[in-house]
Amino acid sequence: MRRSEKKIERIINYRRVLVKLDRNGQPNIFSHQLSALTNATPAQIRRDLMEMETTGSPAHGYVIKELIASINDYIGVDKEKVAIIGLGNLGKAIINYVNGSSENLKITAGFDIQPEKVDRVVAGCHSYHLREFEKIAKKENIKTVILTVPVRVAQDVAEEIIKAGVKGILNYAPINLHLPDNIYVENRDMIAAVEKVAYFSEH
Amino acid sequence: MRRSEKKIERIINYRRVLVKLDRNGQPNIFSHQLSALTNATPAQIRRDLMEMETTGSPAHGYVIKELIASINDYIGVDKEKVAIIGLGNLGKAIINYVNGSSENLKITAGFDIQPEKVDRVVAGCHSYHLREFEKIAKKENIKTVILTVPVRVAQDVAEEIIKAGVKGILNYAPINLHLPDNIYVENRDMIAAVEKVAYFSEH
Repeated sequence: MRRSEKKIERIINYRRVLVKLDRNGQPNIFSHQLSALTNATPAQIRRDLMEMETTGSPAHGYVIKELIASINDYIGVDKEKVAIIGLGNLGKAIINYVNGSSENLKITAGFDIQPEKVDRVVAGCHSYHLREFEKIAKKENIKTVILTVPVRVAQDVAEEIIKAGVKGILNYAPINLHLPDNIYVENRDMIAAVEKVAYFSEH
Repeated sequence: MRRSEKKIERIINYRRVLVKLDRNGQPNIFSHQLSALTNATPAQIRRDLMEMETTGSPAHGYVIKELIASINDYIGVDKEKVAIIGLGNLGKAIINYVNGSSENLKITAGFDIQPEKVDRVVAGCHSYHLREFEKIAKKENIKTVILTVPVRVAQDVAEEIIKAGVKGILNYAPINLHLPDNIYVENRDMIAAVEKVAYFSEH
């Protein structure tokens, strides 16, 4: 059974907040405190965490370190390797941002077709020519790809990398990719996002 | 009544596809063709468009130019001015990307607190010191802001710009902003997005 997307989003969010609190030396937390730091209700948090067989105590709340370990077990994508295709301004900014701030995942390989963007290292991410994708993806067991290619090639590139074993795509190209149902696609069209916020700013 | 977010997202998506078809010289489209280019069903598209008092003909479908004009009327955020706060790698990449590809909106002002990032022009966007935000926002009638500041200052900056009249925030800082209910916030935490896709790639 595919767990609900919303729930996975919430749990990833809890983990991010908890990791930060743990780093600041906080040992325990109550569901209502975690609620104030996320956008979930205390009842929802208790339900989500119960499923992970983590129990808080009425007197001290949850032990943060235990909670993080339970979430890591549950999510099971600790130290996930991710690739990015398209090393323009946006692609490079995403590599710098993700590799500079995430502990749970790392963009380990970047791909482009322009010779001057290939065979470099940006924030710990090595770049290759796109024609090497299948070889590298199999060697490094890459299942997740961030797509920051121009819109006119996005569908073709997506189809190619799926043949190479990719199962999930975070797509920043402003196009609706048409892919098999067993491939997970999250579209993050930035311009549509700005347009939507602009709309609700005025209404 | 606040129109449903999902519907606004769909309509923005239709417009993007239609503008591209119009530019390629296509005069008409049927709902099933628009459906194949978006992720909405033909029935949903017909319902969405009916509300805009745009009617297609059974023989020729919708006239694309009329449809774009109706959507622009309906959405009413043609040539919207947007500001961005935080001119690091991500902020600059977003300016280049949005101003290089969108016809409907433009990031006209950027803000930062580092002197070397102030008083420059990137892709048609002038940059100012953050202390000038209120003055510029009032002068340029800016209601929508993209936030790409470090997480530790995001909440404070958000509260400040709301005092200056901002109504909508597209937030790329990995934090849940706590803001009044009349402010529209869309969170786009990139790391959480990658973690979510990585999770579903494995499950």
